[in-house]
Amino acid sequence: MPGEFYAVIPAGGSGTRLWPVSRAGRPKFLLPLPGPRTMLQETVARLGPLCDLARLFVITGAAHADEVQRQLPALDPEHVVVEPLARGSGPAIGLGAALALRRDPDAIVGSFAADHVVTEPAVFVQTVQAAIEVARAGYLVTIGIEPSYPETGYGYICAGSPLGCFAGLEASTVAQFKEKPDYQTAGDYVASGRYLWNASMFVWQARALLAEMHRLLPDLAAALETIAAAWDTPERDAVLAAVWPTIAEVTIDHGILERSDRVAVVPGRFGWTDLGDWHGFGKVVGEEASANLAVNAEILALDATGAVVYGNKRLVALLGVENLVIVDTEDALLICDRSRAQEVRHIVEELKRRGSTGLI
Amino acid sequence: MPGEFYAVIPAGGSGTRLWPVSRAGRPKFLLPLPGPRTMLQETVARLGPLCDLARLFVITGAAHADEVQRQLPALDPEHVVVEPLARGSGPAIGLGAALALRRDPDAIVGSFAADHVVTEPAVFVQTVQAAIEVARAGYLVTIGIEPSYPETGYGYICAGSPLGCFAGLEASTVAQFKEKPDYQTAGDYVASGRYLWNASMFVWQARALLAEMHRLLPDLAAALETIAAAWDTPERDAVLAAVWPTIAEVTIDHGILERSDRVAVVPGRFGWTDLGDWHGFGKVVGEEASANLAVNAEILALDATGAVVYGNKRLVALLGVENLVIVDTEDALLICDRSRAQEVRHIVEELKRRGSTGLI
Repeated sequence: MPGEFYAVIPAGGSGTRLWPVSRAGRPKFLLPLPGPRTMLQETVARLGPLCDLARLFVITGAAHADEVQRQLPALDPEHVVVEPLARGSGPAIGLGAALALRRDPDAIVGSFAADHVVTEPAVFVQTVQAAIEVARAGYLVTIGIEPSYPETGYGYICAGSPLGCFAGLEASTVAQFKEKPDYQTAGDYVASGRYLWNASMFVWQARALLAEMHRLLPDLAAALETIAAAWDTPERDAVLAAVWPTIAEVTIDHGILERSDRVAVVPGRFGWTDLGDWHGFGKVVGEEASANLAVNAEILALDATGAVVYGNKRLVALLGVENLVIVDTEDALLICDRSRAQEVRHIVEELKRRGSTGLI
Repeated sequence: MPGEFYAVIPAGGSGTRLWPVSRAGRPKFLLPLPGPRTMLQETVARLGPLCDLARLFVITGAAHADEVQRQLPALDPEHVVVEPLARGSGPAIGLGAALALRRDPDAIVGSFAADHVVTEPAVFVQTVQAAIEVARAGYLVTIGIEPSYPETGYGYICAGSPLGCFAGLEASTVAQFKEKPDYQTAGDYVASGRYLWNASMFVWQARALLAEMHRLLPDLAAALETIAAAWDTPERDAVLAAVWPTIAEVTIDHGILERSDRVAVVPGRFGWTDLGDWHGFGKVVGEEASANLAVNAEILALDATGAVVYGNKRLVALLGVENLVIVDTEDALLICDRSRAQEVRHIVEELKRRGSTGLI
């Protein structure tokens, strides 16, 4: 019998660009964006056709473990894996693979961020199924999203040589990973047809990842195996507390994917966004740029267009204004030009400087 | 002994242009704009050096009488005069004069709106004192504000022939009252030096007003004298209820001032505004056009200028926006370009059309 599919959901990050809805104690993945379910709940639901909760792990920080459990009451508390300290995506995703490997030497593991939006979940499932087939052939697979416009807020993946058709999708090797481009470069990427958005979605055999990790990050691989070996014993907490702090911080991208020659990419043709800011939020909740979009609010607009309103159940009346982001919460109100949405993090920085800790 | 000075404060109007703070049940004069005291309380306080509460009447509608009394606890309830129906400023101000005349045949009466802002109250007092002297000479006196810029939202008074110096101020006859002008005309008015803003501030002998009213609006004069004769008797309410509804609606401007040849004007050199909209509110609370102005709110502004914020004790964070009016209340949030502030009344009209009566 081929190895079963396990899902790992790294659930971290503070999401300051979605302030004032997201806060240090209330990061993006715990929030109903766009709602009604939280992003974490949506992520788990989306994976439902691929694996049941017995093979799903959420990896999160101590500050959020209780809320994760509250939002996923059907998830065995053993499957809420608490990192003693944040060490980047490499250790988090690697631990998920190491835990799956202890359960099934042929396990296939997929990793999916807890705070991304997918708008065509059935296509997402088909794409993961294709990625699973490519992974069974021994590749470390990333799902790259076919870009619909020249986004400068994402990294890109340049596809290399074709690897053939898997469950209806053409897989390729990866020629190169690219950092976030400027607008001109992003346009060239999109026009070329060879570039995909890096969506931080990965599928691999657990043993293939650990093997590559032994080669590229041997200290991390050893540490994770030590922890995984103690996991189902009374020593788990002690070993985790002793070993985890010795792990060096590293992302799975820089530590493994950008250095490995066993990486493949499968094209994702579903709607996806990392919901990086309120402008992006607007693109998720409405297609038409000139419309005024409201979540949790009634809008009354007179000669006003392009607003993105995340409300607090009050009427929002707009008169003679264009392309504003308006975010209305109990203790803070944000009003921002849509083109400046990326800079909302500077507001959080300024609040930090002012010592307004209650607002961040 | 010369007649004493009585003050009449007509307190009415719905102030839809200051929505969502002002509402039908919570008109401008009952609100702390700009605060901390309400506009009505400020108006009474400003008149303190000129007359005590025993000679001050507030004329208001039945819907607001209790709140007027609550805001002015030292005012004898007999001095809160309740109009059974709104009939315009002519009957309201005329009734004030008729009541004063019953108390003192030489009474001088000043009428001052309850919802205007005066920023130099000592100059205001000196100006009223000058107007009182002109009124003793038999004129119906209006105080006109020396314009500081070409405002198109006010009516203008064109000064006529000099009448001499009264308490240090040059009084004049009135050549003409002018409706709200366009911007070009307003500029010509200001440049000429002969035009003053019509601030609806009036000072006259009670008997001089009633005499002119007998000539120009005889039915109104007769009705007011009937009511005033019954005022201090058990018949007051019955007579008021019987006579008031028969009175025709008329403003003091159209009914008397624009038709009389006994009108004089005294120049007011104090800061004044009728606080007609949120843009005007911004001019009251801050001089510098590029500053961000906040009442009841903390502002955090990044690359944002010219905002007028009337807050609800929450942080308001602004990023990359210019010249916005932001008014934050419990159940409604207004965001409006400052240049469009006059149009806020259209929002109230739209809410009325939608049947959102709770919000208007």
